[in-house]
Amino acid sequence: MTDSTAAHPNTAKSLTIGVFDSGFGGLTVLRALLPLIPHAHYLFLGDTARLPYGSKSRETVARYAVSSAKFLHEQGADLLVIACNTATALALPDIQQALPIPVIGVVEPGAHAALATSSFPASNIPDGPNQVLVLATQATVQSHAYTHALSALGLEASEKACPLLVPLVEEGWTNHPVTDEVLKIYLTEALAAAPATQTLLLGCTHYPLIEPAIHRILDAIGHPLTIIDSADATARATATLVAHHFPNLTPTAKPTCIFYATDSIEKFQRLGSNFLGQPVTEVNLVDLGG
Amino acid sequence: MTDSTAAHPNTAKSLTIGVFDSGFGGLTVLRALLPLIPHAHYLFLGDTARLPYGSKSRETVARYAVSSAKFLHEQGADLLVIACNTATALALPDIQQALPIPVIGVVEPGAHAALATSSFPASNIPDGPNQVLVLATQATVQSHAYTHALSALGLEASEKACPLLVPLVEEGWTNHPVTDEVLKIYLTEALAAAPATQTLLLGCTHYPLIEPAIHRILDAIGHPLTIIDSADATARATATLVAHHFPNLTPTAKPTCIFYATDSIEKFQRLGSNFLGQPVTEVNLVDLGG
Repeated sequence: MTDSTAAHPNTAKSLTIGVFDSGFGGLTVLRALLPLIPHAHYLFLGDTARLPYGSKSRETVARYAVSSAKFLHEQGADLLVIACNTATALALPDIQQALPIPVIGVVEPGAHAALATSSFPASNIPDGPNQVLVLATQATVQSHAYTHALSALGLEASEKACPLLVPLVEEGWTNHPVTDEVLKIYLTEALAAAPATQTLLLGCTHYPLIEPAIHRILDAIGHPLTIIDSADATARATATLVAHHFPNLTPTAKPTCIFYATDSIEKFQRLGSNFLGQPVTEVNLVDLGG
Repeated sequence: MTDSTAAHPNTAKSLTIGVFDSGFGGLTVLRALLPLIPHAHYLFLGDTARLPYGSKSRETVARYAVSSAKFLHEQGADLLVIACNTATALALPDIQQALPIPVIGVVEPGAHAALATSSFPASNIPDGPNQVLVLATQATVQSHAYTHALSALGLEASEKACPLLVPLVEEGWTNHPVTDEVLKIYLTEALAAAPATQTLLLGCTHYPLIEPAIHRILDAIGHPLTIIDSADATARATATLVAHHFPNLTPTAKPTCIFYATDSIEKFQRLGSNFLGQPVTEVNLVDLGG
């Protein structure tokens, strides 16, 4: 038999990974996934008609996130990555319950990445535990999902809601004195409340775009920190999950991506390219109600 | 006959005015309506689960605004005030077509108020026409609704999208150096492009909360302007419409208000009070889909 795939049906299976965010930020997770899992087909949904999730209630976010996740499953996703901190923090169990496929969020991988870089777990230092500071949206902070995930790993956490950072990134002011000033205010307040902080976790997928500014301000206020970006950690955790659930995949030459947005295709293409780091093409408008 | 209302049935008619915004800003219009039309029952809807409208497409805003307007009509509104610049600019004709009751927006009244304060209509000054600068959301600016409304009155307009102002107001930074700095950037850019500006029109119902800061920055950059707030103008135009359509109303002792929000009631009560200038009570959660 010359066709090896016929002898091993599993190797013929192609993999479709759904990636979901309320908007554009989740494209930083897709960006990290592409080189790590090149043998996959990707479907990305940005629920741009209903964004932002970060200022809304748990009930509303859960309703939006579950309908978005179901859409990607209906389009053929074999595995779903919730590339949105707010949706993960507020609705991961709801999404997992609603779908019969593996679903992974960004909070757990982010917490594990913080542990990996933290040389001093809290329990080992009685006179001053290492703390992880999480910057996130209002809704993510109110859920305390990061505090729970970090506590489970023996790390102490403090959380700071930073509602102006997403609008500043979307205004394109990623390298701008106003953004520096806002960061200075947020970081000074947060570090005054948690002076033992040694690690900073970016708990929103918009924030990697201002990581250089965050480093600059931390240096300026004399409190340099290790910065964790959950996009890379989530991509690595997804690769582990893929290896576990789909062990025999046919490698393909290049990953393919189809994009869906619930609002303006033109805006998704324009803003999305900044987050993906390459042109965003083939965007489809979808109506998820509302 | 002792019951005078029986002899004049029209005088027994009570009036219910629906007021709609994507969020909280429209409460500044309700605040202006209450003393001006005290003999009415008010229904206010904040579509907080789907805000902001200002960054979204015409199609999405029209869908949201029409469903919100229909809800208020179903609850008994006899007349509807679209107390949202973006919904007015992008969807007033859609709403008027969808409802069998009078519907008024904020753009026309704002433009008329600009005309009333403008002593130099463009056509009279060949060597340097007076211009009206409109500050608004991205979507309102892209619609050019204000330019069309002002042009129809013989006024020249320039428009400036100010996407950071709503988040700054919602962060509570109405009197804050960062807001001053952002205003300085926006106003300097806008006035460099339209140096003949003499009147500033606040084309978003969030902006009246930072009117003192706007005055301060205009003075600082040496370009003081007359500032028009469309909330008062809209309330006056609504009073005219009420007098025309409902001439014989029974005066009531005090206006009553019922509030509806599509997301968190607690947040609506907390933030809404800043815009209404008095406590917001009796808020009902409604699901308009999505």
